[in-house]
Amino acid sequence: MKRVLVTGASGFVGRQALSPLAERGFEIHAVSSQPRTPMPGVTWHQCDLLAADGIPELMQRVSPTHLLHLAWFASPGQFWTSTENLRWVRASVELVSEFAAAGGQRVVAAGTCAEYEVTGDDCDERVTPLRPATLYGTCKHALHLVLEKFAEGRFSAAWGRVFHLYGPHEYPERLVPSVICSVLNGEPALCTPGTQVRDFLHVADVAAGFVALLDSSITGSVNIASGAPVSIANVVQSIGRHMGAESLIHLGARALPTHEQPRLTANVSRLRDEVGWAPAMTLDAGLLHTIDWWRSTSRSRR
Amino acid sequence: MKRVLVTGASGFVGRQALSPLAERGFEIHAVSSQPRTPMPGVTWHQCDLLAADGIPELMQRVSPTHLLHLAWFASPGQFWTSTENLRWVRASVELVSEFAAAGGQRVVAAGTCAEYEVTGDDCDERVTPLRPATLYGTCKHALHLVLEKFAEGRFSAAWGRVFHLYGPHEYPERLVPSVICSVLNGEPALCTPGTQVRDFLHVADVAAGFVALLDSSITGSVNIASGAPVSIANVVQSIGRHMGAESLIHLGARALPTHEQPRLTANVSRLRDEVGWAPAMTLDAGLLHTIDWWRSTSRSRR
Repeated sequence: MKRVLVTGASGFVGRQALSPLAERGFEIHAVSSQPRTPMPGVTWHQCDLLAADGIPELMQRVSPTHLLHLAWFASPGQFWTSTENLRWVRASVELVSEFAAAGGQRVVAAGTCAEYEVTGDDCDERVTPLRPATLYGTCKHALHLVLEKFAEGRFSAAWGRVFHLYGPHEYPERLVPSVICSVLNGEPALCTPGTQVRDFLHVADVAAGFVALLDSSITGSVNIASGAPVSIANVVQSIGRHMGAESLIHLGARALPTHEQPRLTANVSRLRDEVGWAPAMTLDAGLLHTIDWWRSTSRSRR
Repeated sequence: MKRVLVTGASGFVGRQALSPLAERGFEIHAVSSQPRTPMPGVTWHQCDLLAADGIPELMQRVSPTHLLHLAWFASPGQFWTSTENLRWVRASVELVSEFAAAGGQRVVAAGTCAEYEVTGDDCDERVTPLRPATLYGTCKHALHLVLEKFAEGRFSAAWGRVFHLYGPHEYPERLVPSVICSVLNGEPALCTPGTQVRDFLHVADVAAGFVALLDSSITGSVNIASGAPVSIANVVQSIGRHMGAESLIHLGARALPTHEQPRLTANVSRLRDEVGWAPAMTLDAGLLHTIDWWRSTSRSRR
């Protein structure tokens, strides 16, 4: 029996993890700080992971064999430097500690490409130095160090590093939604020159990658990414093309943010060859799906 | 006005920090989980740092300008791998977070030589890789990463890395006390060959080094050590000689523990040249002082 506790289960990635978990035969216990509408096959637990005593009670109630820890503070513009990162380090350390005490067997938690030193080469889990430039990246890195060492002799652990993702329920001020919503409103999308090269992966694939990693016995850090580098210009122009509104995409209308890295991409050989998983969606398919979702969402708001 | 909050103030290092803090003009607020006998110039706060709500209340009550964080789990034989290390990561992260929220200005916290990868060269804060082999070293390293990045733009922070220390109130099962106590009992001290080379510093000097670091504006990690490498054989033979009982020191009576590092020593140029501090006691003076302390303690127990 595989009984998984999913944190952040109502979040951007977590909500997409429930279907692939069900497909792989997990008994699903999903954590959210808010009351949730019941879903078939999912037991929801309302729990504030940042509150005292929430975590030990939750672990004793569920007694999971598996932990998929996706919850973190993610408010755009704030998450890089916020003190909330420290609260999530504390909660995450408590979570893995109580998971072990409850007899748990395997943990997968969400890391970030922001843990890597950006060298311009594809980030490789076995080679690229871990030298985070931000508090967010540092807190994730510190948690990974503690998780991996604590796991030794206690349980199996892996760490999925997320790169750039997009899809339904993303914060609307972020790149992909902001361009789509501008076009939906018939307004110009004012973009940077878009020369930055990134690894974009649809959030449903990110979640499915996490679930494949959880359902494997692979340990250590694994990039959860497409392995298909693309420029920001290419992404936003694709959105314009798919929406029949290329003229609304204004590349170069805004300056590049300072300290923006020219290239931040992923080596995905661990994910592909060791975990044996590859994304289901191309960038074009993922963007079309995302455009449809925003279109129906904005329509239902009218 | 310099108002310092000292955690672990009734512990091995902490109790020795109170006098040098007073000498440097700090208003001293000392934290202990147990009720303490009043001392002139020291305000004691009874607080379990691992309990919910203890830390925010303490910080609001004291509102310190300085934090000297020495508390951690230290039970011999257990501290390397214990889950308690995770509780201390959580408490320590909460401590620095609440310290910042209360307007604190400077933090010094205790790190360890166990954070370093042991290469055989003197451990150098600027050069030696940080690759802890143990959960204890990993948790300290993770805390340091979070502390240093969180401090940026918020407060000034330094991290004192402790090597091998000895002196009054050490756990009696540890090396120096166990040899002294064997000799005091007229029993042979059964030692390893003692070929391991270490950096030994009397705990009063360790504490004074921390206080000098706290009272400086130096940031980053600083080894708190003697800079005078010595073999374990030399240490235990010196104890025998000072106690007039060299024949009770049996080098080679026990095997070296597996994984024992042949050499673990400190470069102290940051401490000496940047902080401008050097130990007051030689090894011989420190051992004599320690022998006297154990002699009077064992006498008072009779």
